[in-house]
Amino acid sequence: MNTPSAERAALPTPAEQHGETFREVFRRHAAGVAIITATYDGVPYGFTATSVASLSADPPRFSFNMARTSSSWPAVANTNFVGVHMLSTENEGLANRFARTKDRFTGDHWEPGPEGVPILRDVAGWLVGRISMRLSFENNAVVVAEVVAGDPGPDGAPLLYHGGSYGTPTATDYVI
Amino acid sequence: MNTPSAERAALPTPAEQHGETFREVFRRHAAGVAIITATYDGVPYGFTATSVASLSADPPRFSFNMARTSSSWPAVANTNFVGVHMLSTENEGLANRFARTKDRFTGDHWEPGPEGVPILRDVAGWLVGRISMRLSFENNAVVVAEVVAGDPGPDGAPLLYHGGSYGTPTATDYVI
Repeated sequence: MNTPSAERAALPTPAEQHGETFREVFRRHAAGVAIITATYDGVPYGFTATSVASLSADPPRFSFNMARTSSSWPAVANTNFVGVHMLSTENEGLANRFARTKDRFTGDHWEPGPEGVPILRDVAGWLVGRISMRLSFENNAVVVAEVVAGDPGPDGAPLLYHGGSYGTPTATDYVI
Repeated sequence: MNTPSAERAALPTPAEQHGETFREVFRRHAAGVAIITATYDGVPYGFTATSVASLSADPPRFSFNMARTSSSWPAVANTNFVGVHMLSTENEGLANRFARTKDRFTGDHWEPGPEGVPILRDVAGWLVGRISMRLSFENNAVVVAEVVAGDPGPDGAPLLYHGGSYGTPTATDYVI
């Protein structure tokens, strides 16, 4: 005979009910690839992100999402400034390095920038923002920052992530 | 002679200082195209968004940003559920319709779905989420929702927006 608590335990969790649908639907969504950086206690941190979005142009603000289990979360949680770097197809190695390896800052591919934020060289553009909000949702967080410095790089082919692979946009014929 | 208030008025605003850099940097960022929908007071609302991002898979949550000046803001601000539709290159007309025209729901391209949320037909996939957070930053807002229903559509070529044009991803050669 089921006790009420056993019945409750048998209910599927939201992830069990909708997790696979969620993943399948997001596999149909392409995203630009960026790298977020920060300095904490003199140490540079950074990670590859596919959630960077514009929030407003006036004042210039952007948002991104991240796991609080990320090795960069202590830096983002405890510092005031972050950098966001837009990547081009020339930067696939960098995207991979900041997604899959632990040794992310050995080398001359970066330098300390405004507010001490690590700035990656030869990217498609970067911004430094003062963090205005971190809001945690269990193991994940939404972060909003307001731009205090930046530099657009050379115009090129932006790096995309879609369905487990990198890509770059090809124009469609539709005129808008 | 400058008065203190005249001097203060002469300081550039964040948008004057960094607005153009911000726009240039985001022009180098490609984004997937989605349509957000909601029903409020029996009326369907919707808009094209390039800020949809995954927040967590367990529980399945997503985020998007929008202007509070959007015609859809009253609906998103006052209802509990929203739909997000991932678009493919087949849906460019729909993306345009929900970005640039006022007549968005005349026709049989949609039907009422779970929780009364308008579901668009023939998209690359959709999710319905219960809104867990709306956080306003002056004229803009970050919205987070937790998935309560959804359906992946046929796998196809995702629709992108980059530098003022639609596109679709082409794979790069880099192996990850």
